[in-house]
Amino acid sequence: MTPERAPRIAVGPERDPRFERAVAAGGGVCCRLEDAPDALVWTAGPQNFPEALPASVRWVQLPSAGVEYWLSQGVVKAHPRVTWTSAAGAYSAAVAEHALLLLLAGVRALPAHLAATSWAPESLAPAVGTLRGATVGIVGAGGVGRALIPMLAALGAHTLAVTRSGRPVPGAVETFPVERIDELWPLADHFVISATATRDVETLVGATELTAMKSTAWVVNVSHGELVDTDALVAALRSGAIGGAGLDVTDPEPLPDDHPLWTLPNAVITPHDSNPPPLRIPAYLEHVTENVTRFASGLVPIGVVDPSAGY
Amino acid sequence: MTPERAPRIAVGPERDPRFERAVAAGGGVCCRLEDAPDALVWTAGPQNFPEALPASVRWVQLPSAGVEYWLSQGVVKAHPRVTWTSAAGAYSAAVAEHALLLLLAGVRALPAHLAATSWAPESLAPAVGTLRGATVGIVGAGGVGRALIPMLAALGAHTLAVTRSGRPVPGAVETFPVERIDELWPLADHFVISATATRDVETLVGATELTAMKSTAWVVNVSHGELVDTDALVAALRSGAIGGAGLDVTDPEPLPDDHPLWTLPNAVITPHDSNPPPLRIPAYLEHVTENVTRFASGLVPIGVVDPSAGY
Repeated sequence: MTPERAPRIAVGPERDPRFERAVAAGGGVCCRLEDAPDALVWTAGPQNFPEALPASVRWVQLPSAGVEYWLSQGVVKAHPRVTWTSAAGAYSAAVAEHALLLLLAGVRALPAHLAATSWAPESLAPAVGTLRGATVGIVGAGGVGRALIPMLAALGAHTLAVTRSGRPVPGAVETFPVERIDELWPLADHFVISATATRDVETLVGATELTAMKSTAWVVNVSHGELVDTDALVAALRSGAIGGAGLDVTDPEPLPDDHPLWTLPNAVITPHDSNPPPLRIPAYLEHVTENVTRFASGLVPIGVVDPSAGY
Repeated sequence: MTPERAPRIAVGPERDPRFERAVAAGGGVCCRLEDAPDALVWTAGPQNFPEALPASVRWVQLPSAGVEYWLSQGVVKAHPRVTWTSAAGAYSAAVAEHALLLLLAGVRALPAHLAATSWAPESLAPAVGTLRGATVGIVGAGGVGRALIPMLAALGAHTLAVTRSGRPVPGAVETFPVERIDELWPLADHFVISATATRDVETLVGATELTAMKSTAWVVNVSHGELVDTDALVAALRSGAIGGAGLDVTDPEPLPDDHPLWTLPNAVITPHDSNPPPLRIPAYLEHVTENVTRFASGLVPIGVVDPSAGY
């Protein structure tokens, strides 16, 4: 994948100046799909995707993090000599930023501050904590978890990571394999659930795990609602077994109007909008620039699709 | 100030194991004030401060950021051969963390999310912004402003700093001298007012400045309430001239119960508790360790008191 000249890159299905600028910023030269490009940057869904790609194309960048459709429809398989990349990772920073906000809002008692209608430091200030010197357990160190670690580090927090393999995650004080996850619950001060998508989602945080946590712990979930037992969580929030919860994902989702989580003072709910539409295009543009840079330099692009793994 | 052995350091007015550990962590050896120490770490107010220090003492660490009392009472002047340090800077990280929370909560529309009692991404998600790629104007790059810059950088935000001199602030894309501050208002996406204490506080942000800002701008003030014209701010928040305001300091302060800022949906008020009592001792312990380390190595400690400057 090392071109000896600036790579020629088509943007499709339609020309778009924003994407042409992103390609140019990565060192690529824009051309049309008919003009034998080295690569194709796709900006839309699978409709209108060309049935056959020019033989010159060696790399295709797709705009979504999940690529199930492209795999199931045989598009990837039909072009065995092409490297396909998803937008996996492109949106990690937005979700990590959201997780940081939920955690920091909890630790610094922002919900109680926002509910206040008078100047009452005597009741509010004692509830204000800090992430400085705190230990945050990151459950699942995929793109989001890895993007979160330097944000936490900048605030002076330490990270304990949990991954399937337990291989050391850069920036984490220690990385636990998932079999040792039970050691984490009493150890960390707070938790961010940022496990990546898997086919079978099982409950990770239930009554036992919540009971093992410190009574000041905040639990943030930006991954899958099903990873947390909602009834056990509500009980823990009511009893004060934990400090609070910040949830961008819930089970059930959407959360029904009459659900107790809406009114518990130590629950912060956001409706799965950590990566909302207005932020997606800028993030994808940044991803395109990064991958064009890598393609132009012969480096491995981010988010290479692995058909055997299904993503 | 370069001792050839581990410095002997007294903790006063009373022994305190937390401070003795902090001294040891910095490479110091604890002793009593009567045993000719090289330095004194003071953990309380000016009451009971010894009238005369042993001649061996070359450095005194004081626990507050402001040292007006010690200067005005002649304590500093009475010991001309001693280096005095305040705790200036010790609490900067806590205040910077708070500023980051107020800014991020505003940019990501957390107040509207917390007010919601149903799952409504269609109305909430379009209001969610990001600090990633945003430009934040930091007005006053003292300890707080400087502590905030790497936190913002970790989130992918850029910083424009304003200082009295305009000398480049590390990490800022550009530093403006205060005479050019008017260039900042239309240029940055958001603002954090973090000017350090001065004797004469004048309004910095009034109707003209608010009008010059982007309509999506959030203004965070963690410095002095008087730096922002409250009436002009209320008008700007009501008209939508700016996005919102996060205020840990107000004018008047305390903010009266019937003040409109309490009920404006785009105002976040915290009652001057960015650095609350529970966080102060850990922060001062960290400061003590850092300064003992510096004293032991012959480096200039942080927060040297300058009697001629008054701090």
